[in-house]
Amino acid sequence: METISIGQYDLIYNAFSFTFATMAAATLFFWFGRSQVADAYKTAMTVTGLVTAIAAYHYFRISESWADAFVLSNGTVAASEIAFNDAYRYVDWFLTVPLLLVELILVMGLSRQETTSKAIRLGLLAALMVGLGYPGEISDTSSGRWLWGGLSMIPFLWIVYELFVGLSRSVDQQPESARGLVKAAIWVTVLSWAFYPVVFFAGAIGLEGSTATTVVQVGYTIADIIAKAAFGVLIFMIAVRKSEADMGRAKTA
Amino acid sequence: METISIGQYDLIYNAFSFTFATMAAATLFFWFGRSQVADAYKTAMTVTGLVTAIAAYHYFRISESWADAFVLSNGTVAASEIAFNDAYRYVDWFLTVPLLLVELILVMGLSRQETTSKAIRLGLLAALMVGLGYPGEISDTSSGRWLWGGLSMIPFLWIVYELFVGLSRSVDQQPESARGLVKAAIWVTVLSWAFYPVVFFAGAIGLEGSTATTVVQVGYTIADIIAKAAFGVLIFMIAVRKSEADMGRAKTA
Repeated sequence: METISIGQYDLIYNAFSFTFATMAAATLFFWFGRSQVADAYKTAMTVTGLVTAIAAYHYFRISESWADAFVLSNGTVAASEIAFNDAYRYVDWFLTVPLLLVELILVMGLSRQETTSKAIRLGLLAALMVGLGYPGEISDTSSGRWLWGGLSMIPFLWIVYELFVGLSRSVDQQPESARGLVKAAIWVTVLSWAFYPVVFFAGAIGLEGSTATTVVQVGYTIADIIAKAAFGVLIFMIAVRKSEADMGRAKTA
Repeated sequence: METISIGQYDLIYNAFSFTFATMAAATLFFWFGRSQVADAYKTAMTVTGLVTAIAAYHYFRISESWADAFVLSNGTVAASEIAFNDAYRYVDWFLTVPLLLVELILVMGLSRQETTSKAIRLGLLAALMVGLGYPGEISDTSSGRWLWGGLSMIPFLWIVYELFVGLSRSVDQQPESARGLVKAAIWVTVLSWAFYPVVFFAGAIGLEGSTATTVVQVGYTIADIIAKAAFGVLIFMIAVRKSEADMGRAKTA
């Protein structure tokens, strides 16, 4: 690990601790919220909380690994003998990114067959996207970063296509009170996910040393909070409104 | 960290430990209380408990960081090589202060549109207030403290205006049994929050060294207990009374 200033060390450590607290709080919020939605959306809320719970675990590990990677003494910071374990992020994404698509599909309430086929297809594409990114992340050369990062963009663009085109008919079938939120959830997915390659390629376009480390670590952290916790709040709001719409329909019928 | 007496070290450490226990106990109280209020107020109780849960996590971290920052031997206390991480407080406030306003808005039971718009506006103002305070807190000069502290007062005063003027019509629409408590909750917010700048500026008006550290640490701790745990008890009482009032109305109808 290259030299880093105490200010950068602290900023990154505090960003990790902040994200742990955010993810843990979000998890409890989603699991409490589970009792406030109709049965049809309870699994969506379970999965939404699982995503942030898995992220909370990894951010706890990441912050410990970060603290272990440096030795602080009298206001200076130096690399310790233990390398920072960046793989926690990829392990996390490998699990949580497919689940994020699953929670979106579950809250949309498609037919059982569509739910299964879309969850499997999108889940596999997401796992492939994360898996292809990792060799680029640990690559020492910027050509390695471009190669694997570029390959990883293929499943990403496929997912974007599936979300906007494949789900468009299902979006139109949502109850009116939830339709805007479902569209917002799709946009949050695409935009927050698009932020990851920006951070990823920051390591390939001249940014170097401790500045690159700071941009990459803080950047991924912000993207994770939006893609998992903020996205989860949208899923909860969709589930609440659809529960109300279903009840209204049941009363009128 | 400047020299500090063993009495001051102990007072601050015990204040942190006390606050951890208070926040953790408050969290359980609020989440147990969740089942005693009507559905409309359950999210308010979830968020009330989240605020104290996040604070409990940070007070645990703060007390550990405080212990690590000093070496005790033979009844004397000396600074260790590791600095006390004061940023935990700001990380905490950045998350919890917007949520405190959200719990107040949720328990008032405004229309969906008003709830969303007020929660977003007040939440962003609160995050801005905390974010502007931090550079002042870590500033070495008292002019830096005055500058950033002063800037931070702008969103604070805006929030005070929103609470007293923006919410006044909604306060009048509360059921009679809860109206006094809602007014009290607004006053507790404004008065306990006004206590933070008093502590903050104590570092800029001549108070120095270990006395300033003691005043700042114990002062923030007292303010946190009032603003989060005591305020949360008011939110719970409001939710209980409004649940009773809603039921009474449902019976008469």
